[in-house]
Amino acid sequence: MSRTTGKGDPITEVVNQLSRLPGIGERTATRLAYFLVESPVELPQSLAAALLALQDRVMRCGECGNMTDVDPCRICGSQSRDTGILCVVEQSSDIAAIERTQEFRGKYHVLHGLIRPLDGIGPDRLNLASLVRRSGSGEVREVIVATNPSVEGEATAIYIRNLLVPLGVSVSRIASGLPVGGELEYADRATLGRALMARQPLR
Amino acid sequence: MSRTTGKGDPITEVVNQLSRLPGIGERTATRLAYFLVESPVELPQSLAAALLALQDRVMRCGECGNMTDVDPCRICGSQSRDTGILCVVEQSSDIAAIERTQEFRGKYHVLHGLIRPLDGIGPDRLNLASLVRRSGSGEVREVIVATNPSVEGEATAIYIRNLLVPLGVSVSRIASGLPVGGELEYADRATLGRALMARQPLR
Repeated sequence: MSRTTGKGDPITEVVNQLSRLPGIGERTATRLAYFLVESPVELPQSLAAALLALQDRVMRCGECGNMTDVDPCRICGSQSRDTGILCVVEQSSDIAAIERTQEFRGKYHVLHGLIRPLDGIGPDRLNLASLVRRSGSGEVREVIVATNPSVEGEATAIYIRNLLVPLGVSVSRIASGLPVGGELEYADRATLGRALMARQPLR
Repeated sequence: MSRTTGKGDPITEVVNQLSRLPGIGERTATRLAYFLVESPVELPQSLAAALLALQDRVMRCGECGNMTDVDPCRICGSQSRDTGILCVVEQSSDIAAIERTQEFRGKYHVLHGLIRPLDGIGPDRLNLASLVRRSGSGEVREVIVATNPSVEGEATAIYIRNLLVPLGVSVSRIASGLPVGGELEYADRATLGRALMARQPLR
């Protein structure tokens, strides 16, 4: 059967490449590819240029591990942030999520992964040595572990607690419970159970 | 306030460019950008190369208007397709959708838009002159109008019928009704009304 687009044709190639991105299936990729092909020439060119610059100019921050184009990154280099409190996250994109809340004024540390024994990923694969170094510098009072509330996130949080408490820093964990605006009726059992256990006094 | 990423930094630039795509909001764009920055160097490079090839190599088919890298496009150039039946669509991506059904063996015609009087888009802005030429060539028996079942899609279909019937071709319209697997209970009133009006004898 003859096809609209053969293998190796430019539209199919864009569909194939876009389909490699997380959450983009073949139908979405096809829709995006046709949007791009009908768009002014500037859009795909700008996107391509941005993608190429990404790899040329982005590196890990030598201090916290955040992906950045300046080393140290803008947060580590900032004079206006509290150096006494570190927020530990799994990946750089989690920093963007926490920054959006505007609730955190300390600094970050990016693990670049979680401990996953079933996948053979042990603590040695994570960006932990420099976390120990930073936490033990005497400047840090508190480390907030903001890994996801998943099995691996919890296990990694406990591992970090055991690693850092002997250094004399207090280690805390982000709260887990019902999402704001969520409904009891639709909450899963584990979340609701956690919300009950972690109840807070009403003041 | 200092930010994770300043204006003009490479990650923000990718987020901004991805956000210009339909259906990609800032959060999705951020997730994709961080995925790309942590991915092997080959992925963003391949995607960038595919995007650049898109504009260099893709044009409109001189026969049907489909976006293609060969002119005439693979469907117009195919010997195995029925030249007696044309399927008229709004845009090239609709061809991909119809091809996936494997139910159509004729050729296509791409309008590159719909008549939208409120936006000042009249019939003269659509790829209609060559549709009239193709339909009047004597080879075409039937024209199926496969524009969306929207107000503009219906109006465009009626316009095309009035244009082509005098040429002696039969003009049909794709069926509109309940989606396969859909439920009466959840169908909107217009769809259910249409499904009733367009009922077919059970054979």
